Amino acid sequence: MISSSSQSPAAGSSLRALMPALANKTYFNYGGQGPLPTPSLEAIVACWREIQQLGPFSEAVWPLVTRTTSQLRLRLAEIFGAGPHRIAFTENVTSGCVLPLWGLPWRPGDEILLADAEHPGVVAACHELARREHLSLATFSVTRLRGDAAATDAAVLAALERALGNRTRLVVLSHLLWNTGQVMPIAAVAARLREHPAHPWLLVDAAQSLGSLPLEGAARAADIYAGTGHKWCCGPEGLGAVLLSERTLAEARPTLIGWRSLADESISESRFHGDARRFEVATSCTPLFAGLDRSLALLAAEGAAEERLTRIKHSSGRLWHGLQQLPGVRTLLEVPPPAGLVSFTLASLEPALVVKRLGERGIWLRKLEDPLCLRACTHVTTTDEEVDRLLAALAELIAAG
Amino acid sequence: MISSSSQSPAAGSSLRALMPALANKTYFNYGGQGPLPTPSLEAIVACWREIQQLGPFSEAVWPLVTRTTSQLRLRLAEIFGAGPHRIAFTENVTSGCVLPLWGLPWRPGDEILLADAEHPGVVAACHELARREHLSLATFSVTRLRGDAAATDAAVLAALERALGNRTRLVVLSHLLWNTGQVMPIAAVAARLREHPAHPWLLVDAAQSLGSLPLEGAARAADIYAGTGHKWCCGPEGLGAVLLSERTLAEARPTLIGWRSLADESISESRFHGDARRFEVATSCTPLFAGLDRSLALLAAEGAAEERLTRIKHSSGRLWHGLQQLPGVRTLLEVPPPAGLVSFTLASLEPALVVKRLGERGIWLRKLEDPLCLRACTHVTTTDEEVDRLLAALAELIAAG
Repeated sequence: MISSSSQSPAAGSSLRALMPALANKTYFNYGGQGPLPTPSLEAIVACWREIQQLGPFSEAVWPLVTRTTSQLRLRLAEIFGAGPHRIAFTENVTSGCVLPLWGLPWRPGDEILLADAEHPGVVAACHELARREHLSLATFSVTRLRGDAAATDAAVLAALERALGNRTRLVVLSHLLWNTGQVMPIAAVAARLREHPAHPWLLVDAAQSLGSLPLEGAARAADIYAGTGHKWCCGPEGLGAVLLSERTLAEARPTLIGWRSLADESISESRFHGDARRFEVATSCTPLFAGLDRSLALLAAEGAAEERLTRIKHSSGRLWHGLQQLPGVRTLLEVPPPAGLVSFTLASLEPALVVKRLGERGIWLRKLEDPLCLRACTHVTTTDEEVDRLLAALAELIAAG
Repeated sequence: MISSSSQSPAAGSSLRALMPALANKTYFNYGGQGPLPTPSLEAIVACWREIQQLGPFSEAVWPLVTRTTSQLRLRLAEIFGAGPHRIAFTENVTSGCVLPLWGLPWRPGDEILLADAEHPGVVAACHELARREHLSLATFSVTRLRGDAAATDAAVLAALERALGNRTRLVVLSHLLWNTGQVMPIAAVAARLREHPAHPWLLVDAAQSLGSLPLEGAARAADIYAGTGHKWCCGPEGLGAVLLSERTLAEARPTLIGWRSLADESISESRFHGDARRFEVATSCTPLFAGLDRSLALLAAEGAAEERLTRIKHSSGRLWHGLQQLPGVRTLLEVPPPAGLVSFTLASLEPALVVKRLGERGIWLRKLEDPLCLRACTHVTTTDEEVDRLLAALAELIAAG
C-alpha cells in the first residue's frame, strides 16, 4: 500500500489506485507493457456489451463504432499535435512502422540509414524490404552514453551528418531509445533531412515515447511516427496508431489492403481512402479503442505531458542516483535519465538471475540483450517507496553475491 | 423467447441462450459478425484480470500467454485437420490472406487468377501487388446460380480449366462465396493445380467457411487458408488465423516483421521462426485468444461440424423455400443453399430500404452491392420462428409496396 506520508509524486496519483497490477507487485516494466486501469477494462466491456445490444452487425451499431474510433482519433490528434486525417490505427507499433514503409516509392539502390539502437523487429523488416527492393542499408551510432541531453543531441546530429549520403532515402530513429533511455532530437533530425537534396523520409519508432514524453515537434516532424497504446499509455494490448506526414499520405501506397483501406468497401474498383485510413486494413477490435481512450483520459487527468514527465524523471532520477551508490552497479547513462528508462549493469550477477531473484520478491524489471543490461522503467504511478524497495533488494542481492 | 414447442433445431441450442445479442433482435448477419456468447466475454475479462494479476509484463505472465495461445492453436489445428506449426494468428482475415501473399516468390509476368466473387479487399490487395511486382491479373467465373452442388463444382472446374495458363502462378478462391453462398470445390481445385506444370499457389478466403462448414480436405489442400474468429466462430472481433501449406512455409518470406516473427526477439540477426509464426508480427491482444477459444468450445458443444451444418441448412433451406412463395422475390440460388447464406432480390423494393424497414422491426440482414441483393445468414442458433418472422415481415413490406 502507498503510505500517505510518502513524498513521492505518485502519492497524489489517483491513477495508481485504479491499477490492479500495481496492488500486488513492485512494477518497473512500463516500457514492456503498462498496467491496465480498471476503468479502461470496464470501458472495454461496456463497449462490447453495447455492440451486442445494438448488433453486432447492424445499421444500429455503426454510429457506436464510428463514435468510438473518432473519439480516440481526435484525442490522439491532440497528443500528436496534428490533424486526425493523418492518423491510422494499427494492431501494434511494428505494423505502424512497417506498413507505410513498404508503400514508399522505392528505387533500386536507395539506402536505408538505421540508427544503431533500433528494435530488432524494425531492423529485420528493413533488411527484408532491402532484399526485395534492392536497397542498401547503413547504420549510424546514436548510443551516446556520456554527457547531458545537449551533448547527446549534438553527437547524434554529427553522426547523422557523417552517415548521410546521396542515396540516403530513409532514416530510421526511435524517439526514446528502448535500451539506453536516451531521447533523440527528432525535430532537429527532420530539419536536417529537409536540407538534404533527396529529402529522405524519417521513420520514428515511438514505442517508448507515446504516453511518456511531450511529443512537442517530434511527431509532427516525422514522416511516419508509430506508437502503441499498451506501453506508456496504459491501454489494452493490440492497438496502436501511426501519424503520417502529408507527403507520406500523398506518395505512399498501402500494402495490406482490406475493407478499411477502401473508400467504398463494397466495390473492388473503389479508390483508397485519401487520408491515413488507407493504411488501415480490416476488422479490428472496437472495444480496445474505448479502452485506450479511457486510459489516455486517465493519464491526462494526472497532468499535462510536461508535468507527467517531471514526475517520471523524479522517480527515474531517484533510481539513477541510488544505483550510483551500489557497489559494482553501472548505469548506462552518465547523467540522470531524460525520461523513465533506467538501464544498468551489475558487475557480479547475471542479468537473468537478477530478474529471477527480484521476481521472487515481486519486483519486476527486465533484461535487455544489446547491450546486455537490466532496465527498470518509472511512470507517473511509481512511488519513492517502490524505487527504494528495488534499490534495497539490489543491495541485498549484491551483498549475497 | 424461444418456444419450447418449436421444431427448429436451435430450440435445443444452449449456445443461443448465452448470446445477449440474440435476446433483443432477430439476427441474420452471422456472415458479417457473429454474436459473442457471454462466457466468451467472461473468458476475455478473466484473462485480462489474470494478466494484470501476474504482470502485465513479467516472467510470471509468459506461461499464461503461451498456454492461452497454444490452446487456441491446437483447437484450430484440429478444426483445420493440420499441424499447429502451420497456423499463424492474424488480426483479421485480410491480414491472413495478404501477408503470406506478399511473401511468395513472385517473378515479373506471373499471373494471378482471381475468382469473380472474391471480396473487394482481397481483390484490391492483388491489384496493388500486381502493380508493384509487375504481375498480370485474370478472372474466372464461379458464380453458377443454377443447378445443384455437383453442377456448380463441374462448372467451377471447367471455368478454371479454361482460365489456367502457362503464367498462372496463383489462384484466389473463397471456400464459401460471401455473395451467392455457394461452396467451392477447393480440394478438387487444389488437385487440378497440382497437375499444372507450374503448380500455382492456391489462396482460399475462409471468411465464411471457418466455423460454418466442415473443412474436410479444403483447408489442408490450400496453400493459404485464411479465416477469422468473429464471424461464424462467434468469437471476438480482431483475431483471425491462417493455415499455411508446407511449401508456403518453405518458400514464402514474411512481410510485416516484428518480434513475433523472430526466433529470438532480442537479436537483430535472429532468424525467422521456421514455422508459421514468422507471419505473425508483434503484440496482439492475448485476451481475445481466450475468448475465441471459449467460443469454439461452445460451438463444438453444439455438435460436430457436419451436424451443425445440417442445422444451419435446415434454417437456410426453410428460408429459401419460404422466399420462393413471396411475390417478386428471387433467390440467387436455384436450389436450397449448401450452407447458411441466403441471398435474394425483391422486384419492387430497394435493398437499402428493406434493410432499414426490417431493422425498424429488429430484424437484421444486410445489403450486398455485387450482385445487388439482400443476404440473410442462418447459424445453429437460428430458430424456425426467426425465419418465419423474417418471411412474414418481407411479405408485409412487399404487400405495402
